[in-house]
Amino acid sequence: MNTKKVAVIMGSDSDLPVVKPAIDKLREFGVTVEAHVMSAHRTPAQASEFSSNAAKNGFGVIIAAAGKAAHLGGVLAAHTTLPVIGIPIKSSTLDGLDALLATVQMPSGIPVATVAINGAENAAILAVQMLALSDEALAQKLVDMKQKMEEAVMKKDAKLQEELNA
Amino acid sequence: MNTKKVAVIMGSDSDLPVVKPAIDKLREFGVTVEAHVMSAHRTPAQASEFSSNAAKNGFGVIIAAAGKAAHLGGVLAAHTTLPVIGIPIKSSTLDGLDALLATVQMPSGIPVATVAINGAENAAILAVQMLALSDEALAQKLVDMKQKMEEAVMKKDAKLQEELNA
Amino acid sequence: MNTKKVAVIMGSDSDLPVVKPAIDKLREFGVTVEAHVMSAHRTPAQASEFSSNAAKNGFGVIIAAAGKAAHLGGVLAAHTTLPVIGIPIKSSTLDGLDALLATVQMPSGIPVATVAINGAENAAILAVQMLALSDEALAQKLVDMKQKMEEAVMKKDAKLQEELNA
Amino acid sequence: MNTKKVAVIMGSDSDLPVVKPAIDKLREFGVTVEAHVMSAHRTPAQASEFSSNAAKNGFGVIIAAAGKAAHLGGVLAAHTTLPVIGIPIKSSTLDGLDALLATVQMPSGIPVATVAINGAENAAILAVQMLALSDEALAQKLVDMKQKMEEAVMKKDAKLQEELNA
Amino acid sequence: MNTKKVAVIMGSDSDLPVVKPAIDKLREFGVTVEAHVMSAHRTPAQASEFSSNAAKNGFGVIIAAAGKAAHLGGVLAAHTTLPVIGIPIKSSTLDGLDALLATVQMPSGIPVATVAINGAENAAILAVQMLALSDEALAQKLVDMKQKMEEAVMKKDAKLQEELNA
Amino acid sequence: MNTKKVAVIMGSDSDLPVVKPAIDKLREFGVTVEAHVMSAHRTPAQASEFSSNAAKNGFGVIIAAAGKAAHLGGVLAAHTTLPVIGIPIKSSTLDGLDALLATVQMPSGIPVATVAINGAENAAILAVQMLALSDEALAQKLVDMKQKMEEAVMKKDAKLQEELNA
Amino acid sequence: MNTKKVAVIMGSDSDLPVVKPAIDKLREFGVTVEAHVMSAHRTPAQASEFSSNAAKNGFGVIIAAAGKAAHLGGVLAAHTTLPVIGIPIKSSTLDGLDALLATVQMPSGIPVATVAINGAENAAILAVQMLALSDEALAQKLVDMKQKMEEAVMKKDAKLQEELNA
Amino acid sequence: MNTKKVAVIMGSDSDLPVVKPAIDKLREFGVTVEAHVMSAHRTPAQASEFSSNAAKNGFGVIIAAAGKAAHLGGVLAAHTTLPVIGIPIKSSTLDGLDALLATVQMPSGIPVATVAINGAENAAILAVQMLALSDEALAQKLVDMKQKMEEAVMKKDAKLQEELNA
Repeated sequence: MNTKKVAVIMGSDSDLPVVKPAIDKLREFGVTVEAHVMSAHRTPAQASEFSSNAAKNGFGVIIAAAGKAAHLGGVLAAHTTLPVIGIPIKSSTLDGLDALLATVQMPSGIPVATVAINGAENAAILAVQMLALSDEALAQKLVDMKQKMEEAVMKKDAKLQEELNA
Repeated sequence: MNTKKVAVIMGSDSDLPVVKPAIDKLREFGVTVEAHVMSAHRTPAQASEFSSNAAKNGFGVIIAAAGKAAHLGGVLAAHTTLPVIGIPIKSSTLDGLDALLATVQMPSGIPVATVAINGAENAAILAVQMLALSDEALAQKLVDMKQKMEEAVMKKDAKLQEELNA
Repeated sequence: MNTKKVAVIMGSDSDLPVVKPAIDKLREFGVTVEAHVMSAHRTPAQASEFSSNAAKNGFGVIIAAAGKAAHLGGVLAAHTTLPVIGIPIKSSTLDGLDALLATVQMPSGIPVATVAINGAENAAILAVQMLALSDEALAQKLVDMKQKMEEAVMKKDAKLQEELNA
Repeated sequence: MNTKKVAVIMGSDSDLPVVKPAIDKLREFGVTVEAHVMSAHRTPAQASEFSSNAAKNGFGVIIAAAGKAAHLGGVLAAHTTLPVIGIPIKSSTLDGLDALLATVQMPSGIPVATVAINGAENAAILAVQMLALSDEALAQKLVDMKQKMEEAVMKKDAKLQEELNA
Repeated sequence: MNTKKVAVIMGSDSDLPVVKPAIDKLREFGVTVEAHVMSAHRTPAQASEFSSNAAKNGFGVIIAAAGKAAHLGGVLAAHTTLPVIGIPIKSSTLDGLDALLATVQMPSGIPVATVAINGAENAAILAVQMLALSDEALAQKLVDMKQKMEEAVMKKDAKLQEELNA
Repeated sequence: MNTKKVAVIMGSDSDLPVVKPAIDKLREFGVTVEAHVMSAHRTPAQASEFSSNAAKNGFGVIIAAAGKAAHLGGVLAAHTTLPVIGIPIKSSTLDGLDALLATVQMPSGIPVATVAINGAENAAILAVQMLALSDEALAQKLVDMKQKMEEAVMKKDAKLQEELNA
Repeated sequence: MNTKKVAVIMGSDSDLPVVKPAIDKLREFGVTVEAHVMSAHRTPAQASEFSSNAAKNGFGVIIAAAGKAAHLGGVLAAHTTLPVIGIPIKSSTLDGLDALLATVQMPSGIPVATVAINGAENAAILAVQMLALSDEALAQKLVDMKQKMEEAVMKKDAKLQEELNA
Repeated sequence: MNTKKVAVIMGSDSDLPVVKPAIDKLREFGVTVEAHVMSAHRTPAQASEFSSNAAKNGFGVIIAAAGKAAHLGGVLAAHTTLPVIGIPIKSSTLDGLDALLATVQMPSGIPVATVAINGAENAAILAVQMLALSDEALAQKLVDMKQKMEEAVMKKDAKLQEELNA
């Protein structure tokens, strides 16, 4: 049984609506989540302390969500050897391109596993995939989810046939 | 002890010079690597078969490197629930932006953990971080590597002091 | 008489409002259309099977519409030698640039004939142009459509003269 | 037997090195090619006359290659109902993005089937795919080419195994 | 006295709201304007004929407004030696960047004088500046307009002082 | 006879190789050119004084060439009602996109007629087109140049025929 | 005690809603602010005169806010050796990228200290940081503000815990 | 007399060739410089400690130079209330756009005064401008430098006259 927790850190509480699906998806998989508002720039001490102690505090993966000059993922990754997943958040200008580049273009030695702009749900699934490497039950849940996704698309296709042939 | 292997799949053999550091770094960590040239577009059957069987063939993580309309990571991720890491490869036009967007902007349900353009070494480190979640020895190696990186930067700083004050 | 069908495949049912004009335009030309929701990532087996059998099932052209990391066109093209037309769909970030690059920047050997972002109507016309290469009646319909477009613009110009000189 | 010719029109003779693979590939498929230097801006009369008469002169597909504000594809498409394939050419600034957007973002009614920046070979293959819709022998050649591409990738993979395990 | 007219050509009647300020501004300067809906792609014959005869029909400047793959300015410029001013129109995707690049990146020999995206008013002023080169009265009106603009800004500054010190 | 001069102002003497074709082309047309190195930022007084007096000093058109945050065109346009043509210069980063946007995106009231990145020759031709509005001889030279360009392309096409059929 | 004033110059009164937070923040720090509407293009004389005399009129820092081809910061910087801070303003197209590049990409010799697109508050804080270099009381206020920001984030984190665990 | 030092921090010793002009220029102004290699990601403890103590260690301004996901400026700014100047460094992909956005798009509360991509000399001048606010002698040196720049441009203009009229 995997007992490692996942941390979901967001740079601002205004990111919560975008980040919430990550928390929900992780809980759906039965993963213990701890979510925090922490800023690479406004609370750097909290961020580095949290990250430095994450492994020994029982976390397996850290998800970092931030917009604009999105340094949060990189700052957290600097203080841990746990995998850090970055969610670039779209803000009021540049359509999230700034956050994407600031999250993904990390220098050699300190990766941030970046998902799509505002891709909170995928960040959660990626975290589950990592934990599932040593948790058979979790791995099975991923297989089940994939199956359900496939069936959902097939149902939508069936529904489309009805609509177009109505 | 973690016995899971890492697969490094590249879309073209011309990507090898960029991808090689990933293979080297994984070996440096003592991780068993299997590398393949497989194309999402030219050998789709091989790609989907490889990915579909990766978990049961002992792989823990798949790294996919591709340029231009880089579909390889997404196509591999479509056939497995293992974590897939994408390396966008810079090609002769658009400076890798096409590969970055084609790799990272995955739809909900099928994440690809994207690293920097040409970021092969980081893809390897990220894979090791994932495997290290259930492998204490590997985790310790990551801590050691981080320490060495820190020391290397400090040495460079010391050298800079000499140069500037010479 | 050309009896080849056109397939319109969309990556998500949410793309239907954008894709519908393609279906309508094809029907307007009297071309038999079959539309499906199929995902390169969520239903890869369905997508590859559909594409592999498209030629022998009587299709002449496949139109693929997808957003973000739009792999659908490429994945379908990987399994057929029929011409595949890609419609990049604009989604909530990056204004469709991600889908455009992921659709058009295909590697040598596997082209996807890309039209404008959200250019569903043009995808249909392009498909008709291809079928019309061996279908005189269809070719004539294209000539007629072009004529009508020309007349429509001329009418708008005449109306503009009235408005501006009113 | 398909007797339709393919026209390859380039905006400048300096584009020939990039465009040549299209001509070669078409000839490789046994398709009759006619290539011309014609400019949407410097020889607009030649361009529109060529395009207006292309169908009755035995052409089935027109390939247009141009860089910068690449209007050539659109201008040719304006005068014909034959399918027009656009190759955006990378020039000395902006890495081909200008030519890509100027080629692909066509208004409703006048599609240009756009391939990758500098994607001459794919333009040729796409043209062959169109002609093959009514030419069984050509269709078979495409299937053969696809097979050979697949085998070539598999050979490269085998070679990679040797190199890495040497 | 300058009796040369200015033509304002728009690619679609849907561009009128953006283009109208150009017409209004030209009339404000007492310049005779003729406006038309003409499409580089849908009515290429009308466009090239208009442009070919523009000089002898009394036009001095042609303003062309178009969006997306904005070829209109280039197509008109191909058929005349009169100065052609291009207004790139912002459409539903890419924020006008496509139209800007398709308008401004003209090849050597055929310039299009490009103004800002949606910059209709400036297109008109630029046209007036050209005509004013041989029309003293018009030149004086430009000087007067510049003076008024300056005074308007100074009034706004004075008003700002009141607001901020209220 | 038109006796108005054209000023070619470059922001840095390092721009001369790119700007030189404008000077040469203007002289080729028999237009009197005066070229200066003047910087919007380093010699603002010289720039504004030159521009303020340009009209009364016999200039008809000002061409401004600058890279990066290319303010030169705008600064010159601020002090004159003569038409100002801007050449965005490609510098060591961003491929000229910065200079293009800084030149073309002028606010209402102060247009800069922008040509392609590094489009010096077109800037010259555009200037000649403006002067030719009141200079029949110059207008004829433009018609001749257009004719020669057309013939040059046709010769290149003929040469291509030889090469390809050799 | 620091008695130097800060000038906040905006290119258009329509920028006031975006710029106002800069004025408010400066006043919050007890810094004397003078705000003006001045245009690099419409009132160049006022702008250069203001800037030329800013130092001797008691200003320590100039903040310049402008959109599109944002030349205001550069033009002000050309006439003073005081530090000039640029706020790129997002306008109706291109999401502020034009203003960002036109503000930040200044040539050697004339820096503009650029903050984020629409980053008025940060422009004010940066100005205060500059003045605080010789003003202990102001420096202490910055330390206090930083402390309050930290506490505010921590409160939001505490509130998030309540919400998620409710 | 101003005795505050300027720190020049670079993320990697490979940035030295680009950053060196900043060090040289500061020394030319007689400012005491201390340069360090410190990484936001590899030596986060050193970076935060340096920045936290910078003010009390006699620094007045910190210059931070970094490429790719350039977090260095933001990380240093998070730990100090001194002004931090960011130099975005162009690396092997994306032409410095990633570093520019990651440096300039800082969230409210923590500005980084950003200069042009690779704009090391301007970073130094900006630092001097800040220090000169309370250092008359330094202010005078800036005025002298500005004067020399102006004269240098005027000499280049004179030289251009000779060349063109030779």
